[in-house]
Amino acid sequence: MTQIKDLRNQDDFTGFYLLKELEVKQTNATTPKDYFDIVLADSTGQLGAKFWDVSSQDKETFFTMGLVKVQGIVHLYREKLQIKISRMRPAVEADGITLTDFIRSAPVASNELIDTIYKAKDSIQDTEIKAIVAYCVSKVEEKLTHYPAAKTHHHAYFAGLAYHMARMLEIGEFLCKQRPFLNADLLKAGIILHDIAKPEEMIAQLGIVSDYSLSGKLMGHISLASTWITEAAIRCNINLDSEKVLGLQHMVLSHHNLGEWGSPVQPQTAEAVALHHIDAMDAKLQMVEDALQTTPESEPWTPVVRGLENKPIYRMKL
Amino acid sequence: MTQIKDLRNQDDFTGFYLLKELEVKQTNATTPKDYFDIVLADSTGQLGAKFWDVSSQDKETFFTMGLVKVQGIVHLYREKLQIKISRMRPAVEADGITLTDFIRSAPVASNELIDTIYKAKDSIQDTEIKAIVAYCVSKVEEKLTHYPAAKTHHHAYFAGLAYHMARMLEIGEFLCKQRPFLNADLLKAGIILHDIAKPEEMIAQLGIVSDYSLSGKLMGHISLASTWITEAAIRCNINLDSEKVLGLQHMVLSHHNLGEWGSPVQPQTAEAVALHHIDAMDAKLQMVEDALQTTPESEPWTPVVRGLENKPIYRMKL
Amino acid sequence: MTQIKDLRNQDDFTGFYLLKELEVKQTNATTPKDYFDIVLADSTGQLGAKFWDVSSQDKETFFTMGLVKVQGIVHLYREKLQIKISRMRPAVEADGITLTDFIRSAPVASNELIDTIYKAKDSIQDTEIKAIVAYCVSKVEEKLTHYPAAKTHHHAYFAGLAYHMARMLEIGEFLCKQRPFLNADLLKAGIILHDIAKPEEMIAQLGIVSDYSLSGKLMGHISLASTWITEAAIRCNINLDSEKVLGLQHMVLSHHNLGEWGSPVQPQTAEAVALHHIDAMDAKLQMVEDALQTTPESEPWTPVVRGLENKPIYRMKL
Amino acid sequence: MTQIKDLRNQDDFTGFYLLKELEVKQTNATTPKDYFDIVLADSTGQLGAKFWDVSSQDKETFFTMGLVKVQGIVHLYREKLQIKISRMRPAVEADGITLTDFIRSAPVASNELIDTIYKAKDSIQDTEIKAIVAYCVSKVEEKLTHYPAAKTHHHAYFAGLAYHMARMLEIGEFLCKQRPFLNADLLKAGIILHDIAKPEEMIAQLGIVSDYSLSGKLMGHISLASTWITEAAIRCNINLDSEKVLGLQHMVLSHHNLGEWGSPVQPQTAEAVALHHIDAMDAKLQMVEDALQTTPESEPWTPVVRGLENKPIYRMKL
Amino acid sequence: MTQIKDLRNQDDFTGFYLLKELEVKQTNATTPKDYFDIVLADSTGQLGAKFWDVSSQDKETFFTMGLVKVQGIVHLYREKLQIKISRMRPAVEADGITLTDFIRSAPVASNELIDTIYKAKDSIQDTEIKAIVAYCVSKVEEKLTHYPAAKTHHHAYFAGLAYHMARMLEIGEFLCKQRPFLNADLLKAGIILHDIAKPEEMIAQLGIVSDYSLSGKLMGHISLASTWITEAAIRCNINLDSEKVLGLQHMVLSHHNLGEWGSPVQPQTAEAVALHHIDAMDAKLQMVEDALQTTPESEPWTPVVRGLENKPIYRMKL
Amino acid sequence: MTQIKDLRNQDDFTGFYLLKELEVKQTNATTPKDYFDIVLADSTGQLGAKFWDVSSQDKETFFTMGLVKVQGIVHLYREKLQIKISRMRPAVEADGITLTDFIRSAPVASNELIDTIYKAKDSIQDTEIKAIVAYCVSKVEEKLTHYPAAKTHHHAYFAGLAYHMARMLEIGEFLCKQRPFLNADLLKAGIILHDIAKPEEMIAQLGIVSDYSLSGKLMGHISLASTWITEAAIRCNINLDSEKVLGLQHMVLSHHNLGEWGSPVQPQTAEAVALHHIDAMDAKLQMVEDALQTTPESEPWTPVVRGLENKPIYRMKL
Repeated sequence: MTQIKDLRNQDDFTGFYLLKELEVKQTNATTPKDYFDIVLADSTGQLGAKFWDVSSQDKETFFTMGLVKVQGIVHLYREKLQIKISRMRPAVEADGITLTDFIRSAPVASNELIDTIYKAKDSIQDTEIKAIVAYCVSKVEEKLTHYPAAKTHHHAYFAGLAYHMARMLEIGEFLCKQRPFLNADLLKAGIILHDIAKPEEMIAQLGIVSDYSLSGKLMGHISLASTWITEAAIRCNINLDSEKVLGLQHMVLSHHNLGEWGSPVQPQTAEAVALHHIDAMDAKLQMVEDALQTTPESEPWTPVVRGLENKPIYRMKL
Repeated sequence: MTQIKDLRNQDDFTGFYLLKELEVKQTNATTPKDYFDIVLADSTGQLGAKFWDVSSQDKETFFTMGLVKVQGIVHLYREKLQIKISRMRPAVEADGITLTDFIRSAPVASNELIDTIYKAKDSIQDTEIKAIVAYCVSKVEEKLTHYPAAKTHHHAYFAGLAYHMARMLEIGEFLCKQRPFLNADLLKAGIILHDIAKPEEMIAQLGIVSDYSLSGKLMGHISLASTWITEAAIRCNINLDSEKVLGLQHMVLSHHNLGEWGSPVQPQTAEAVALHHIDAMDAKLQMVEDALQTTPESEPWTPVVRGLENKPIYRMKL
Repeated sequence: MTQIKDLRNQDDFTGFYLLKELEVKQTNATTPKDYFDIVLADSTGQLGAKFWDVSSQDKETFFTMGLVKVQGIVHLYREKLQIKISRMRPAVEADGITLTDFIRSAPVASNELIDTIYKAKDSIQDTEIKAIVAYCVSKVEEKLTHYPAAKTHHHAYFAGLAYHMARMLEIGEFLCKQRPFLNADLLKAGIILHDIAKPEEMIAQLGIVSDYSLSGKLMGHISLASTWITEAAIRCNINLDSEKVLGLQHMVLSHHNLGEWGSPVQPQTAEAVALHHIDAMDAKLQMVEDALQTTPESEPWTPVVRGLENKPIYRMKL
Repeated sequence: MTQIKDLRNQDDFTGFYLLKELEVKQTNATTPKDYFDIVLADSTGQLGAKFWDVSSQDKETFFTMGLVKVQGIVHLYREKLQIKISRMRPAVEADGITLTDFIRSAPVASNELIDTIYKAKDSIQDTEIKAIVAYCVSKVEEKLTHYPAAKTHHHAYFAGLAYHMARMLEIGEFLCKQRPFLNADLLKAGIILHDIAKPEEMIAQLGIVSDYSLSGKLMGHISLASTWITEAAIRCNINLDSEKVLGLQHMVLSHHNLGEWGSPVQPQTAEAVALHHIDAMDAKLQMVEDALQTTPESEPWTPVVRGLENKPIYRMKL
Repeated sequence: MTQIKDLRNQDDFTGFYLLKELEVKQTNATTPKDYFDIVLADSTGQLGAKFWDVSSQDKETFFTMGLVKVQGIVHLYREKLQIKISRMRPAVEADGITLTDFIRSAPVASNELIDTIYKAKDSIQDTEIKAIVAYCVSKVEEKLTHYPAAKTHHHAYFAGLAYHMARMLEIGEFLCKQRPFLNADLLKAGIILHDIAKPEEMIAQLGIVSDYSLSGKLMGHISLASTWITEAAIRCNINLDSEKVLGLQHMVLSHHNLGEWGSPVQPQTAEAVALHHIDAMDAKLQMVEDALQTTPESEPWTPVVRGLENKPIYRMKL
Repeated sequence: MTQIKDLRNQDDFTGFYLLKELEVKQTNATTPKDYFDIVLADSTGQLGAKFWDVSSQDKETFFTMGLVKVQGIVHLYREKLQIKISRMRPAVEADGITLTDFIRSAPVASNELIDTIYKAKDSIQDTEIKAIVAYCVSKVEEKLTHYPAAKTHHHAYFAGLAYHMARMLEIGEFLCKQRPFLNADLLKAGIILHDIAKPEEMIAQLGIVSDYSLSGKLMGHISLASTWITEAAIRCNINLDSEKVLGLQHMVLSHHNLGEWGSPVQPQTAEAVALHHIDAMDAKLQMVEDALQTTPESEPWTPVVRGLENKPIYRMKL
């Protein structure tokens, strides 16, 4: 079965794919006909596709996020690969495939990631900090298992947010060993809390963000997380003016470093400075890794990556 | 009695003033002597002063924020006017003067301003919005009677914050009449709440800010006010996800308009756009008015005003 | 009769509309056919439309800015609504419709706006300032009745410029009452003069700007208005170096506040600072109001508004 | 006689100098004494100086811009050379010196520069363009012989403005030969007019700018020159809307290239683009030349030059 | 024979052209057919074209960079002119045309330009500087005869790089006469070396850049040229730490003036400042000249030019 | 013996210190006397000091970078602590102190750091990359043992550069384990080479930078290192166009990430992206650690740190 990533111009192929997007449109002809404008996807990527001469039965058979068996041909349209679908049917149980095989996912299983995060949370020694972290995590609990970390910027796939947290916790652990003056409790808490309101900010399904929520647009995940810390402290009877609460608030509020990047204050504690750099390092290197992995091995250059100064990445031959 | 604003080079004068700053220093001579490095102030301005040959009794007699009777001479030192104090004694009850006469104040009495603000609050028809505003106001209640709105930027004097609110409420009332699509409840609430956490952000006495508080530095008044709204809603049993709460949060968070000016989100409701412009208009025009009023009538140009693109203001002769 | 704003996908409709744009094009087929690429408009908005199989008679019958009766169907083309016109004829006198019913207009009648502006001009007490304002207004007199204030930015419709002036005069009147140190003569003059050269800068018809003029491109409306003040002073025998002339020049030149926004000098008089903020407040709030009014009530969000930090506006449900 | 440029630490010297600045100040001692805080200058540079124990007669004898004979010692004060004056007397006729020998001047005689400019003006073939140039030049005629081109930025000395114009005319002549599509009339006119209002913008004496004028601050030399062109066209009965007038206006208005550098429009004609680059090239290279010439030969690096990206210039040893 | 520049909508024409781009595509129809998506070019410009119903023989006959005889019709497609080719055949020897007639070229013959550059190189008096220049020129020798100076920015045609150098050498010669303190050897060398690595940075054929090279992307022409100077000095046994080598390195590294424009250091020698301004003046004026020459005489405005602040240029009628 | 860091106002103390700066100055009195303007330092910090009434013998006894025994008193001068030295003598051998005890140093011994760096270099498996690294390291060998990494920005002390490298190698090792797609050879090489030309760029003694060198100013350490790689490849007969050489060049050139921060190209390989983030993380966290360590424990806030967005760091009390 051919993976999306391996499809080349003029390929004649058959395989199972996800209907990531499906829209009924009309041709531009004098007597317009219905056709499907489709985005076919699997875990290796996605491609635009057309399914011409759509019958009214077709319109009731196929729907967005359904799995299908497709026979098609690849051609170039406006400099881009596109699929012309010759035959298509919905997948059935006998095909033995499942939805999650067809979406981009973190390379580590979601339950392992959650486990890592929970262990880190449980290892926080200060009981008040631990309580605040637990409260905030509980607000998104189920979503943490599958939410992406962003719409397109980085870790934009199933369990991307948990993967981002887990990797950052590894860097944080290393840094606390290398520089013992850093407070491990604060840093762990900061890593878990810094993007904790992203599942509230975005509306996502299977790792794909369709939109931002109303509170996401009017407040943003940084201010949302800040109010959650307040809420947690009130619910757990923790002094709102304590340095612990201030320290957590400060890490969350400052982790984008600059006002023009969304942080109303700049990092002014050791852990806040560390958090910003751990976040940047993990996000940027993941962009590099994902760009290289979703580009065919034969291509020396990835497409441009917006978060990497809008530059493509070159695959060194060494 | 000569006012600070009217002192000129070579003036020989006597008067009552406030010791706004007082520090014991040593002369630069081979056998250093103690002297007082002083800032003398009254409601019209302030000037640097030196009191030489300080005795040990003097050091116990004079202190910062005390009122004194001074005889002195004005001279130029490094391009600036400076006072050489020849005689000085503490003011006594018989002098019949009071501290508040010697500090810069809003031009309207503090209790009138508070009255205006409370009336506006009480006129809010939505009971939940009113409850949130009341809760937040109650957190700073006494401070609202005398806090400045900023350290130096604008309204930096006794009751400056309340004066700023009261004036903005006037503009808001006008705008709601001119453009009835604006929601008056939201706009009143936004005006009262937008700077409500400034007394928490800054440490001030008699309208003079000496420093920012720890929470002021680590969170800033915008995020502080945002968490207060959350706290208020929790305490008053108001739904945290309601549009009312979001609308208030959004106005507070966006009122500086841009990320580089401290707002993590940009205005996206009619009332948030209005609030930003009311705030800017009142702050900037007050800077103009204050600059002109504290510059001697004989001077055509005020000093540069940082908030006005770092430009001085010209007093038109018309 | 269905208004543009209310047309939905798959609607089959009949109505009168303005041919805001009309171009003859050829289909992409091997033997290309002529068709009309059209923008249909009424006072509530505009939509793209196609009229296929155009005859040579059609090409002589229909023209831009003509009124037509249309029967058509709405469909989606590239994510946007588009009209397929099945039948179309020019409107005739018996249809009882007039052009001005089909264009976007200020919500107040043009003659009322002109009246407001003239009254404000006549109320200027300084005869020289009044003479300069009168001279400049007379340069654009007829155009003032119908010109928009901008191509797309704000008040981009019939009589938009006069509406902008009239509203600003209201805010100016309020501000002069609230802050009596402002000179009402200068502020009224500044409000009337600040955009007075826009009808020279832009080429517009029925409130729609088709292009900028040569002098608009090479000088811009700010510098044009500045030279008009000079011309007015020369023609009225007013001293070019007087503070009055300088004060008016300064307000016009500085009203965009910053160099990068087109102002060669920054506001340095009280009235210039006030003018800039009155202009900004009126323009931005009008953008909000217009965006909300041209978005269907059922939509919670307007499209993004370029002048509002490129953000959409949310319609609060309160 | 030792020139300022050649004075070194610990030098004991005698010479004639200009009292470029002189201020009576008081020592910081318990019984303060008067002293002169002085800037001594000659054509090669300037140095701070102190003259202690000033008598009341001294105060009547010495004044700013007077010539004096000085005996003094050079020492270092706060990392900078400073002169301690031991003896000083006013210059008398018998000394045979004249003021202009003691100020920084363009390296070409003022009357030669004026001659060059007038010849260029007279060589303009279009009579209307020539008339406008002549009118504007006549507005500053006498000042053109001695005004500097700026306060400190570049050509900040006696006849600096005329020198800047004359050099630019040379570059312009070369460019018109190299690229014949440039209109020589327009370019000559643009060069002469682009800074023509600087003598109105600044208040200067002997090539030294003491301040900006009121119209300089409220309008700036670019907008002033633009209104002069309008005035000239009116007085000479030239059509204000002609391309000639627009072309001249455009060159003047756009010659700073960007809004943040003071130009309300950007260059959009060939001659306007050329003018901007001729202006930049001459100003920057003159900054380099002047910095090298006023730095002692023994110093490899000049002080930083603000207009050259705030960098110093290195004197290559080649 | 009609030149591209003169083709108008509805023109029916025959002529010889270059197939600057040619791609086989499929129509969007249900049974797609092959067609050629073509860019036709001659020395005056280029236009998109379609050749429908392509046979398999056609696919073997026509290729990119071939010369063809074309019969076609011009029409408007999406606001742009496009050619529908009715007949097309490859050019044959008997047609008497040559490839170089059909590409945009510098207006001076390539061998003349090379001659100018070599003479300038040979006139350098310092033998070490001359040797370094000769070494670097020899690295690109053949390419110097035909490479453009940029992909699109300026001098983007056959021999554009040599033309840019030759013109800059003329300005440099003028400047060294006008300002004798400039070192002519350094300036000549800087002009020849500043863009010398562009043929290594870009992949070009017939003056058309198709892409940047790997070293062009990873190092850029500025750093490449810097390493060439090092290589040259090593190969010619010149002291790497000498001021000559440093002076050349500095000119090359700083010629873009600012970090955001690609220069890691800012100009700090007289010749480096001069080089930057000569480069800017020549590049910008060439953009103006080229924009005017490739715009039909009848058009008053050129398209916008990215390098000229994204503005179009107006053709003055004088 | 009191350390500099622990000196408080009014302290009367005796101790050994380094004369980090010493200058002979004259008092401002009518008959000026010589005094020493001194900066006293030890490994914990530095303070300004005055030594009055300097004899001619004193001038021959004391010199910059000498060790002295000092008796003095601390007082406040212009808001800052300053020392008045009552007695001072040069340290003698019998005092048993050595220079390196008195300067700020990396917290790890220089030879250990060098050892770490050499081991990393030796562990590079690719022999060509190893050869280039070895060649470049050999150019600075002795200086690597003691040079700082910057003048003031970060790691500005004895062996600061080697410490920066060693710490970055630790982070690099961790990252290569966490993300195995990174090439360890390239990353190690990039870490060792990225700042390798700093000892050429700066002039330093005992970890204190007094100035930048000529090549430092005219080329900068980034371009210097780039030419060293070229030199190394030539000397070691390695192909200049190989991907290895390009990959190393690219990492060095891009490690400041943006043009405005000095990098002529932006990171476009995985290892270049990693290098930038490792560099930033180590530099910024070291700034935090150093700021906290040089601030008295009793102070909750450090002074502002320029490299940390010009913010101070708060010492959390947790």
